[in-house]
Amino acid sequence: LGELKAKLVEVMLKLKKLGEEDPRRVIHSLKVGLAITLVSTFYYLDPLYHSFGSSAMWAVFTVIVVSEFSVGATLGKGLNRGLATLVAGAMGLGSYYLASSTGDIVQPIILGAVVFLLVAGVTYIRFFPQMKARYDYGLLVFILTFCLVSVSGNREDKIIDIAKKRVTSILIGGLISVLVCIFVYPIWAGDDLHNLISKNIEKLGNFLEGFGDEYFIEGGECNKSFLQGYKTVLHSKHAEENLANFARLEPGHGNFLFRHPWKQYLKIGSLSRQCAYRIDVLNGFLNSAKTPSQIKSKLQEPCIKMSTETGKALKELAVAINKMVPPSVAEQHMTKSKIAAMNLLTTLKIGLFEGTNLVEAIPVVTVASLLVDVVYCTDKLAESINE
Amino acid sequence: LGELKAKLVEVMLKLKKLGEEDPRRVIHSLKVGLAITLVSTFYYLDPLYHSFGSSAMWAVFTVIVVSEFSVGATLGKGLNRGLATLVAGAMGLGSYYLASSTGDIVQPIILGAVVFLLVAGVTYIRFFPQMKARYDYGLLVFILTFCLVSVSGNREDKIIDIAKKRVTSILIGGLISVLVCIFVYPIWAGDDLHNLISKNIEKLGNFLEGFGDEYFIEGGECNKSFLQGYKTVLHSKHAEENLANFARLEPGHGNFLFRHPWKQYLKIGSLSRQCAYRIDVLNGFLNSAKTPSQIKSKLQEPCIKMSTETGKALKELAVAINKMVPPSVAEQHMTKSKIAAMNLLTTLKIGLFEGTNLVEAIPVVTVASLLVDVVYCTDKLAESINE
Repeated sequence: LGELKAKLVEVMLKLKKLGEEDPRRVIHSLKVGLAITLVSTFYYLDPLYHSFGSSAMWAVFTVIVVSEFSVGATLGKGLNRGLATLVAGAMGLGSYYLASSTGDIVQPIILGAVVFLLVAGVTYIRFFPQMKARYDYGLLVFILTFCLVSVSGNREDKIIDIAKKRVTSILIGGLISVLVCIFVYPIWAGDDLHNLISKNIEKLGNFLEGFGDEYFIEGGECNKSFLQGYKTVLHSKHAEENLANFARLEPGHGNFLFRHPWKQYLKIGSLSRQCAYRIDVLNGFLNSAKTPSQIKSKLQEPCIKMSTETGKALKELAVAINKMVPPSVAEQHMTKSKIAAMNLLTTLKIGLFEGTNLVEAIPVVTVASLLVDVVYCTDKLAESINE
Repeated sequence: LGELKAKLVEVMLKLKKLGEEDPRRVIHSLKVGLAITLVSTFYYLDPLYHSFGSSAMWAVFTVIVVSEFSVGATLGKGLNRGLATLVAGAMGLGSYYLASSTGDIVQPIILGAVVFLLVAGVTYIRFFPQMKARYDYGLLVFILTFCLVSVSGNREDKIIDIAKKRVTSILIGGLISVLVCIFVYPIWAGDDLHNLISKNIEKLGNFLEGFGDEYFIEGGECNKSFLQGYKTVLHSKHAEENLANFARLEPGHGNFLFRHPWKQYLKIGSLSRQCAYRIDVLNGFLNSAKTPSQIKSKLQEPCIKMSTETGKALKELAVAINKMVPPSVAEQHMTKSKIAAMNLLTTLKIGLFEGTNLVEAIPVVTVASLLVDVVYCTDKLAESINE
């Protein structure tokens, strides 16, 4: 029993942490509850029930499926569902009437063939990458509605009447979710994308700011979590693309107009991932560093300078993105780190390693070279942000 | 009109290409069509229709939603749907009876409160990363079923009867999809994962095999697509995790037993991504190479050797994974590339760059160092595959 209690406390703590990480999760859950409670009143209010009958179920259904975390995702699902229902409903009715104009024996065969071909065709179309990204849900709903209408049409006499009621309930359900989603504490995918990109660049900056000291000056075992933060940047492509797809659909809000250049964010994201790959290689050198410190010290100064200044520049770029201002402070840091890179090159020119064992110097030279590479990447990033 | 025709031809070509890339897509589409046609016969066969009524709709519904590309994904959705329906149905009935034991005015309020709390709670739980990966669909179906049962319960008198019919139709629908999915030309997520991992390692091998010649011997502008293949490896994490989740659920098939160590594949995948990051940095040097060839030539031999042999080793590892044999040939190549790495170090030891401008040598040294790093990564990969 004590074990059970401990387990329960653990789960509770996890639940609490989930909410603290992002309080909007709590808000979203309450919003979904609200939307469903609203639509449920449909069932309770007698006049509405009498006109809709059991079709009111579709409104509940729609609210549950359409209510997504962000406004963009909800709008996307709502539009997909609405359009697909209308088109598939019309086509289903059409093929039903087409089939019923033939004889009693041929009818089910024709209907079966039409359903088979259409379902197989649409399922195939879902494999298109562009379709999958944006219209996957719509195509699924299309298959669903088409089958329900054309197949059940065989049974129901008042098919038009039922179709009308269903479409209306779905539209009402969709409308309720979209309204609740937009007007009760809206959660914008665009904001999320904006913050994600800015956070990712900040994480890269954190790493570089700490890296120089960490590599050249072997210090105490203090908190090094900032050195691991960049790892999430490596895999953020999927999340970024999803958010950009949702953000496209959102109406203007806050600082974002309707046609905000969301694609530019994807470009910035891809550049920061390029940076992150280089940083991952640098991180590898942190753990395998066995270079004698007298060799390290020869390149220490310009390298630390490069790393720290680039880190600061990245963090300033993150701030600039976040506040949507031109990254002027970042440019100053970039200039400094470029000067440090030049210094490094002149240091190397004067035959620095003459006499020492070159093998031992390889890691430091590589680190230096990668840092130059990172400076270059960051420069491209800054350009891209300026656009 | 000519434009329209051109457009149509273009779409047709795209459709054809989609099928040629992976003929299983065509097969999957036909399978879904088959499953839906099968379940539609429910509506046509009179005795079945009379016992199920409009609940038969739920069978059609289930088939459409559950039919996924791979066996694992279909089983996952089917299990999620089945379990969630049973649990939610029972709970919905319970809360309906609980509420109806109270007065007429209090009843809707209690029911509304229960629905609100449960929906908000389950929506919140969906944010757990572990839940999201495996049970997201089940939780959605839970909300759906619970709402439909407890809310519509208010209206229907024969609620138990309806619930029984619906559960039966859903089970029948699920069974049809799963049977069609497994017994008609099955598509296994496990095979896909297996091939994906092996293909990815092969792509890395292709790059390295070509890289040495490409960097050190500036040759003709022949087909260089093999140098770009590695890029997809950078972003394969998401796909690998999904496939591993599906593969876990699949029964034994071909060379795979039921408890095949799918997690090991994720480990191998993560190591090959580490390799891919280094390769991305190497690729950067291909385009920015301005090193004089007399400096390059000093390291040319061991570097080309390292790159080619590691490339061959990776390709042999890919073959070994694919055929599930111990990678003995790969080990020979690894030994060769390690010898080349040793040679490189001794070459450097004898003061190779004495007198030359060290700045110009930096890129080559970095490339060499990265190659050593890749050799090290590959070694870990080989170890991991041996396990």
